Amino acid sequence: MTDPRPLILSCPLPRSLPLILAPDRLAELRARYRIVETTDADLPGLPDAVLGEARYIIGQPPLDAATLARLSSLRCIFNVESNLLNNMPYDEVFRRGIHVVTTGAVFAQPVAEIGLGFALSLLRNIHGADADFRAGRELWGGEGNGAARLLTGAEVGILGFGDLGRASARVLAGFAPRLRVFDPWLPASRIREAGAEPASLEAVMAQSDVVFCTAAVTSENRGFLGAAEFAAMRRGAIFLLLSRADVVDFGALMAAVRGGHILAASDVFPEEPLPADHPVRAIPGFLLSAHRAGALDVAFRRMGEMVLEDLALLDRGLPPMVCKRAERETVARFRSRPVAVN
Amino acid sequence: MTDPRPLILSCPLPRSLPLILAPDRLAELRARYRIVETTDADLPGLPDAVLGEARYIIGQPPLDAATLARLSSLRCIFNVESNLLNNMPYDEVFRRGIHVVTTGAVFAQPVAEIGLGFALSLLRNIHGADADFRAGRELWGGEGNGAARLLTGAEVGILGFGDLGRASARVLAGFAPRLRVFDPWLPASRIREAGAEPASLEAVMAQSDVVFCTAAVTSENRGFLGAAEFAAMRRGAIFLLLSRADVVDFGALMAAVRGGHILAASDVFPEEPLPADHPVRAIPGFLLSAHRAGALDVAFRRMGEMVLEDLALLDRGLPPMVCKRAERETVARFRSRPVAVN
Amino acid sequence: MTDPRPLILSCPLPRSLPLILAPDRLAELRARYRIVETTDADLPGLPDAVLGEARYIIGQPPLDAATLARLSSLRCIFNVESNLLNNMPYDEVFRRGIHVVTTGAVFAQPVAEIGLGFALSLLRNIHGADADFRAGRELWGGEGNGAARLLTGAEVGILGFGDLGRASARVLAGFAPRLRVFDPWLPASRIREAGAEPASLEAVMAQSDVVFCTAAVTSENRGFLGAAEFAAMRRGAIFLLLSRADVVDFGALMAAVRGGHILAASDVFPEEPLPADHPVRAIPGFLLSAHRAGALDVAFRRMGEMVLEDLALLDRGLPPMVCKRAERETVARFRSRPVAVN
Amino acid sequence: MTDPRPLILSCPLPRSLPLILAPDRLAELRARYRIVETTDADLPGLPDAVLGEARYIIGQPPLDAATLARLSSLRCIFNVESNLLNNMPYDEVFRRGIHVVTTGAVFAQPVAEIGLGFALSLLRNIHGADADFRAGRELWGGEGNGAARLLTGAEVGILGFGDLGRASARVLAGFAPRLRVFDPWLPASRIREAGAEPASLEAVMAQSDVVFCTAAVTSENRGFLGAAEFAAMRRGAIFLLLSRADVVDFGALMAAVRGGHILAASDVFPEEPLPADHPVRAIPGFLLSAHRAGALDVAFRRMGEMVLEDLALLDRGLPPMVCKRAERETVARFRSRPVAVN
Repeated sequence: MTDPRPLILSCPLPRSLPLILAPDRLAELRARYRIVETTDADLPGLPDAVLGEARYIIGQPPLDAATLARLSSLRCIFNVESNLLNNMPYDEVFRRGIHVVTTGAVFAQPVAEIGLGFALSLLRNIHGADADFRAGRELWGGEGNGAARLLTGAEVGILGFGDLGRASARVLAGFAPRLRVFDPWLPASRIREAGAEPASLEAVMAQSDVVFCTAAVTSENRGFLGAAEFAAMRRGAIFLLLSRADVVDFGALMAAVRGGHILAASDVFPEEPLPADHPVRAIPGFLLSAHRAGALDVAFRRMGEMVLEDLALLDRGLPPMVCKRAERETVARFRSRPVAVN
Repeated sequence: MTDPRPLILSCPLPRSLPLILAPDRLAELRARYRIVETTDADLPGLPDAVLGEARYIIGQPPLDAATLARLSSLRCIFNVESNLLNNMPYDEVFRRGIHVVTTGAVFAQPVAEIGLGFALSLLRNIHGADADFRAGRELWGGEGNGAARLLTGAEVGILGFGDLGRASARVLAGFAPRLRVFDPWLPASRIREAGAEPASLEAVMAQSDVVFCTAAVTSENRGFLGAAEFAAMRRGAIFLLLSRADVVDFGALMAAVRGGHILAASDVFPEEPLPADHPVRAIPGFLLSAHRAGALDVAFRRMGEMVLEDLALLDRGLPPMVCKRAERETVARFRSRPVAVN
Repeated sequence: MTDPRPLILSCPLPRSLPLILAPDRLAELRARYRIVETTDADLPGLPDAVLGEARYIIGQPPLDAATLARLSSLRCIFNVESNLLNNMPYDEVFRRGIHVVTTGAVFAQPVAEIGLGFALSLLRNIHGADADFRAGRELWGGEGNGAARLLTGAEVGILGFGDLGRASARVLAGFAPRLRVFDPWLPASRIREAGAEPASLEAVMAQSDVVFCTAAVTSENRGFLGAAEFAAMRRGAIFLLLSRADVVDFGALMAAVRGGHILAASDVFPEEPLPADHPVRAIPGFLLSAHRAGALDVAFRRMGEMVLEDLALLDRGLPPMVCKRAERETVARFRSRPVAVN
Repeated sequence: MTDPRPLILSCPLPRSLPLILAPDRLAELRARYRIVETTDADLPGLPDAVLGEARYIIGQPPLDAATLARLSSLRCIFNVESNLLNNMPYDEVFRRGIHVVTTGAVFAQPVAEIGLGFALSLLRNIHGADADFRAGRELWGGEGNGAARLLTGAEVGILGFGDLGRASARVLAGFAPRLRVFDPWLPASRIREAGAEPASLEAVMAQSDVVFCTAAVTSENRGFLGAAEFAAMRRGAIFLLLSRADVVDFGALMAAVRGGHILAASDVFPEEPLPADHPVRAIPGFLLSAHRAGALDVAFRRMGEMVLEDLALLDRGLPPMVCKRAERETVARFRSRPVAVN
């Protein structure tokens, strides 16, 4: 007698099921589904019987047309790494109505929070004043507030208005900023609905006291922020690089900070890890974070909860509503490099 | 023929009129009022004609009963230093219906903003990770997130719910925290109206992930936070000292952080400036700020705007509505030391 | 041996203690205090021993100078009727530091709610369409929506920004209106803090789709809204009279509605009850409510809770923080007629 | 030389292009696109050249497989009637990646607003008190407030959490209700994100002071609210029928109101128009509205703006982001009857 539970192929590297599911949630997953643990490399070699029964994949294995054809019951691919790779015949995937979904939204809240922390640290020199205090060279009271500014009522720009851009707007709520958003893939009404003003890239760069860069890398926007864009910023304004290093000309960003025109913080870098002698390490006014913004345990655990909720909907014949669905039109345009470590 | 404009005695040290009023606002003040610039020491020696005509004082000069009697037209004392001193016969002041008002609310927003910045820096080790990165010893991704936690949805406590406590709640709005407030001078309904839960000191200390200490020093609460209170905090919780050092047993606070039980940030210290060899300078997990939280130009300028608005009300026979009024019952209970520098 | 509990003189007509206190709260009051139940007329005849011991009065009895002098321990008068009468020597009351407080804030929420209900009923003709439907003459779909308009994004004016004006702004929050406020006793910054724009009376009348009139009657504003003000309103705009009839020229308001220039709702009238043949009863577009807006049981019960909270503060030597304090400068300017029924 | 502008087939009955587009927007549409105005009946008879070039359809014409095949360039069907009909081979539509989108979201705001208006009218008897006042039988003050209740802080239930359910939550924001939502197609996390509690149908019916019924009719939920559900409501609670009459057993709803157990308002009816002698017309406590809730000019005009914004995205090879996309899994489950009039 056969096991009636839906079958899941699991190959979530670099994630793992225990990383993304708390013990009780992992037990729930194992109770509700048959799990075949495999790898990207081994998956195509699984027997037809297994592939043909698989309803769901947790992971983002490369799939060729033949393997996809053998996955005849496939309903949804849960990409828990969260960067979309162009490694399967998406046309056919969408033709068959297979959902491809990602759980990257879990990083939005942690990254937005540290982004606001970066902004406040730079506006008030929290990190620098602490270092000075420890070194016995602190300045007291107004003396220590040279360039200090308030965030309340400031003009804030957001580049890209996906999950991270929206989460950034959310953590800023208590500061009542004037919010301008540049997102070329989003219509104006969707930005206005969120309480922000749609704006051109030029307007965001030139009229912001703080810029949250949350744009994903696509086939169209590599290095779209360069020397000219940074030069157009207000003197003393703050640029926060929170998404991917490839959207900026990193050398130009360093130059703009080194020259004293702007302040910056970055969580992402052209190479990771960064060489020990990389010049960014020595630039005053450039706050540094080693790709730590999103990688919180609580974020990974939320991934598994999203998968469980959408599995439940799919089991009932409903579409997934919690994970983000890849779009037929844009799925092949993303260019973020996959992560190798969690 | 006499000048019909109301007469102001001005002795705002350590502030000055140009510090608290932008040039155009200072011109407006000078146009609307006759200003006699004096000092705390010189004021009692002014001629009867001047004292008898003075409607307003900007400053907080010591006044004895005789001088107060000579100030027969006095309507309002604008204390722009903002700490109330027990240096005048308040009973008689209030008997005569003279308002005593302070402009300390201007510091609430800057202090609340840096307080949130402290919290995010400690929750995510922003300052420490930047220092490590500069020293070439950064940890990448999740490796660098040992104790990192989200603020969103955290339990946050606020001690004291005056202007600063309320501003703290406001900047926290985007994080949807569960907010508990301890304020023994405030009835429960006023705390609930602001969206927070009234709580005992014990509950705030024991159930918070982050505590904003915003309580003023009074005759009743010196050192009310000591070893027992810090020991009752959750392991790894964060204590932010944003008001006055005298409300804590500073040695006990240092010990709690040094022992690794809690993290802390402080903008105020038992002595200011602090000796070069003060042990707090070397405690890991203790974020340091040299009484810089409030002293922003924009805050000083707001003082003057508040004074101008309330002067306009008083001129029309209305009570002041913008500055905070000292209360007959509590005015003599405050014990904050006056500031000597801006 | 004497009873150490503070003594309260109670003469709250037309309220009563059971009206304003739920049974358990009334029991609490009786447990915490000695209550002497009296009347406005009988109070002056109470023995010196009683008057001399009375710490609090619940009610608003007329007090002459002699009686006030005998009330030598008096700390606070709780006016639970809530309209301030000019029936005691206020100068002496304030000179002695006796608080005079009112509980009228309890009506703000019920009146604001019905005010929004009036606005929506008039914007969408909810009441008229229901009457038509019952009479079998309803119009279906868009046919029935002649002048229907949305409130979301509308321009809304508020006249007077006390408790009721603020509560009105609060219930409007979900409609994201552009809010203009006229309040001559309030400085601009206090209006801006609440998220509204300070505006002149002219601007509010001329630029609003809906006007909430929440202004109290004072010695200065009787009938300040007349034919000219109503004529300046937008054609089809809505005027909601929620405070007191004496602030408008009621005949002019009726004429403006009868002529089809504006729509209106009123909860208050020049005479109450209104004669059976009063012409307002027959004016289409004039929504009528017989002074019902505030008189909810839940509002009366909240009065007692406010009194209990402030009594607790006063008992501890703190000032009242929940009830609204009368101001020395304005107490004698109010002109609302007292209510005879609850 | 050919016209390079994309071709639109337009058959939006009962809408029309001038209904859904203001003159300037219609001009914009005509400038950006070639428009072929047709009808549901005529469309299949259009020449192959026209069908083969059509990129977009505005309307919801019945399409058989053959016609769909001839529409070889079709990218998106804009259903501006907004009820999805099961009148085309959806499997093939989705296989080809043709978007089917609806503009029904435009009705959410007008319906939510009148829904709140119904709630306030019933809670305070605004409509009834006005009728009584006109008839000279009004009750003054508390006498007229028999069953009056506040909405602030009430327990409110929402059935269905699509655009209308969410808009209802939004207009309720100023009342800080405790909000419970039942929506069997939506995972719990999506409801929590919106600040509401996911709840069972039973919990919503039994624990609400006011229920907003916003659920669409599907193949699964016809008449899911019947005598048992209404009997489970709190005595005196309010049921607002804002979506479609088919989700309730209308007779049972009438009986529950007639018996005095609950109050209700309805904008939709089992037959429209309703017979002159329909018994609902005479039930006290049943507020009636003749399918007027959504049909505002401003709503129809917003339809066209949504279409224009999504056309612009589609023209650039991006997916539509403003209109709501029909889902492959659920498109065939909707059972709302189309409307015949606007």
